[in-house]
Amino acid sequence: MRLATLRDGTRDGRLVVVSPYRPDGAGGIHVAREADTPPSLQAALDDWDRVAPALAALAIRLASGELTGEPLDAARLGPPLPRAYEWVDGSAFLNHVRLVRKARGAEPPATLETDPLVYQGGSGVLLGPNDDIRVDDPSWGPDFESEVVVILGDVPQGTRAADAGHHIRLVTLCNDITLRYLVPDELGKGFGFFQSKPATAFAPFAVTPDELGDAWRDGKLHLPVVTTLNGAVVGDPSAAEMHFGFPRLIEHIARTRAFTAGTILGSGTVSNADRARGISCLAERRTIEQIETGRAVTAFLQPGDEVTIEARGGPFGTIRQRVVEGSGA
Amino acid sequence: MRLATLRDGTRDGRLVVVSPYRPDGAGGIHVAREADTPPSLQAALDDWDRVAPALAALAIRLASGELTGEPLDAARLGPPLPRAYEWVDGSAFLNHVRLVRKARGAEPPATLETDPLVYQGGSGVLLGPNDDIRVDDPSWGPDFESEVVVILGDVPQGTRAADAGHHIRLVTLCNDITLRYLVPDELGKGFGFFQSKPATAFAPFAVTPDELGDAWRDGKLHLPVVTTLNGAVVGDPSAAEMHFGFPRLIEHIARTRAFTAGTILGSGTVSNADRARGISCLAERRTIEQIETGRAVTAFLQPGDEVTIEARGGPFGTIRQRVVEGSGA
Repeated sequence: MRLATLRDGTRDGRLVVVSPYRPDGAGGIHVAREADTPPSLQAALDDWDRVAPALAALAIRLASGELTGEPLDAARLGPPLPRAYEWVDGSAFLNHVRLVRKARGAEPPATLETDPLVYQGGSGVLLGPNDDIRVDDPSWGPDFESEVVVILGDVPQGTRAADAGHHIRLVTLCNDITLRYLVPDELGKGFGFFQSKPATAFAPFAVTPDELGDAWRDGKLHLPVVTTLNGAVVGDPSAAEMHFGFPRLIEHIARTRAFTAGTILGSGTVSNADRARGISCLAERRTIEQIETGRAVTAFLQPGDEVTIEARGGPFGTIRQRVVEGSGA
Repeated sequence: MRLATLRDGTRDGRLVVVSPYRPDGAGGIHVAREADTPPSLQAALDDWDRVAPALAALAIRLASGELTGEPLDAARLGPPLPRAYEWVDGSAFLNHVRLVRKARGAEPPATLETDPLVYQGGSGVLLGPNDDIRVDDPSWGPDFESEVVVILGDVPQGTRAADAGHHIRLVTLCNDITLRYLVPDELGKGFGFFQSKPATAFAPFAVTPDELGDAWRDGKLHLPVVTTLNGAVVGDPSAAEMHFGFPRLIEHIARTRAFTAGTILGSGTVSNADRARGISCLAERRTIEQIETGRAVTAFLQPGDEVTIEARGGPFGTIRQRVVEGSGA
């Protein structure tokens, strides 16, 4: 099934079931809910085993045409979880790690291929698919990072990868916006990212893994993730090149603590060793320029720039964001 | 007013108003709620301006004796927020930063006195004041860290310190449990703490700043934080020696993003330059041993050890935790 959250003035928004993905877009997108549909996606995740069958039944009625639903009002689309209890982001595309560290003159960790890299992100304020990227100071170097994410059910401490797959409730995409020029000083302080990671944006539709069919295998999304900047495709690398699948990332994060339903876990920036597939963040293009010509010339995002992210042939819909100067406060 | 959360089988527990702190403990501790009391502390924080007056009125009736309430069932005490949207921890006691970095042979950051250090902690599963510290492997080196924390209302992006104080809704204490032997490899990977920070435990009572009277000034708690290990006091440093007050920490974290109501913000390990005041974490004692004798001899926590944390003369109640081997999964 395919789920979305519509803004309705509440903190968590309103959960709706969305008509199935059709590659040709025929018939448009319709949404539905019933009197007993949980108010929000978080409420559904809190009680998943009990409520998922009814959500799935509603999705089947929308798919069969038995129920028409209402046309989706795209202007109301929020992120699937407007606020989440945790947002943990991996960095599981090793080509990205190798390139970005090379550009900073840093070695990748010695355990790169055996020990996943993750960081704890901020999760209390998340952005919808069409929300502006607001930066008070464009000289902070805003950049996009196109990623695959999963939304988890309750995960016990000590969960192993072999048992982790069934804790994955939903799959979607995100734009893990990064303020590049704030990164070096912040990592230099030794405590990881903080100010350099402003609010993350999410694709409109979160889907159960079964909705992906063959495109979900080995705990990885087997689709290209296409990023555009001001209308031009900058990359379409395959998300299947993820070195650690999500079950292995779950084992890693659950080694010393448990996670509550609604935790979001990310893949890290999608990146392929084949340079013809392009990039999913400008930092990577700058790194390649540095390696190939000795000088990075690509600028980071500027006010007015528009970024889109979607999975080709995938059901997540499109992240489409413009960069705007000012906090909006 | 003084608030607590009682476990009732729900994910967020049941909010109760607690009778005022009395230094002599006379009369015991009573709790009350009414039909229109928000179900949980998070629900109260979500709608604070509307619900706080009724909570305060209930607190006044408990204080005056007009209402008796029910005796507190300490066995049901959970953390004030069993799951929170963010847990951001500062490191604002510079004596602690200087000592711990010295022991690792690392320099403190050059901007130590002007630029706050913070890290993003895990917030989806938090521990109550009497919950065990469960570690699968005692060789991970579990340690306590006694801290002051505030719970925030909504904080807009770009909030400045001068305007930040009124976003502080509640004050309490935490034990920011750390697995010391997992820290060096993790920080070496460059992305900050993750596995080395298991679930954090909180004191039973969260209080509004006005409840603290003169003990809350300049956005700092002016009380000693007393830590015991197996019944012996190991330290009682004053929390007033915090270099950056909470308003300055709020300005720091809000520089590039907004925070939602219920965000928890910590002071970092309470530590005083005066060594006679003792320690609030074993790592600091080991550092002092290293500096004074060339060799750290104090062991980290062992299964069976009991730690307590409280503010002397303060209304937060006591964190009392035992170390237990095994995840409980």
